[in-house]
Amino acid sequence: MLFMFKKRDNIKEVEEGKYFSPKFDEKGLIPVVTTDFKTGGILMHGYMNREALKRTIETKEAHYWSRSREKVWHKGQVSGFIQKIKEIRVDDDQDSLWLTVDIGNGSSCHVGYRSCFYRSIPLGKINNDEAIEIKFEEKVKVFDPSKVYKDEPNPTKL
Amino acid sequence: MLFMFKKRDNIKEVEEGKYFSPKFDEKGLIPVVTTDFKTGGILMHGYMNREALKRTIETKEAHYWSRSREKVWHKGQVSGFIQKIKEIRVDDDQDSLWLTVDIGNGSSCHVGYRSCFYRSIPLGKINNDEAIEIKFEEKVKVFDPSKVYKDEPNPTKL
Repeated sequence: MLFMFKKRDNIKEVEEGKYFSPKFDEKGLIPVVTTDFKTGGILMHGYMNREALKRTIETKEAHYWSRSREKVWHKGQVSGFIQKIKEIRVDDDQDSLWLTVDIGNGSSCHVGYRSCFYRSIPLGKINNDEAIEIKFEEKVKVFDPSKVYKDEPNPTKL
Repeated sequence: MLFMFKKRDNIKEVEEGKYFSPKFDEKGLIPVVTTDFKTGGILMHGYMNREALKRTIETKEAHYWSRSREKVWHKGQVSGFIQKIKEIRVDDDQDSLWLTVDIGNGSSCHVGYRSCFYRSIPLGKINNDEAIEIKFEEKVKVFDPSKVYKDEPNPTKL
């Protein structure tokens, strides 16, 4: 454990104390939600390890842990859509982070949409025997992934 | 696997298809970010299992999986701060959810603040030998947890 991230000694201190004591799970990761400074909407949900978190704080550009590529990932390195950090917040028990970022007119989703959350789920009674249809809320892609990523493997896993 | 959540057959379908195929991790959970319909800010980060997700869609009130209590948790059952669902979105690879909820003038944080994310982390060079001090962004609690929760155990774990 690095000293910059204070040891989690007691609950009161974690919840209401003045030190940053992030909780990394058994894989060494903490979940991160990233919202768009401009629109206020959520852009993506990802993970950081200690190194990605340190680099994010220091460089003021978002770094994540890529679970598919198993390495620290400087978001935008390939696509050019760097996320400039406006604010980082931590939750009550310090086991998740909220980043507010500036991506200008760019995109955060490797599929090409501005936000990764481009589809909504209908509410109400579910028929157990029928697949739920989802609705596209974003209809226009910001970029063409095949041109931007070329031969990069798709990070989505089944 | 229930049929209402379509089997994840191929990546193209998961990313750009019209069916809901949420990915539950090895513990049977999917991470969920909840934002405030009124302020646009993030209220909390939690998890759902299949049952909590089904109940959320059907009742239009947020249900989560409580990892500390190990059961489905109808948010607000004790505190009264029910989260009424305005929208549910799913991300590109369908391994996280975004809920937009209405909590009126209530709170989402068991510590008493409106949002669980009431503290921010300063940006810039880190001194490895020094604990990072965080800053309170919300200063006023919406409710007094000791009065609302009485003898309920604190869900925060070290």
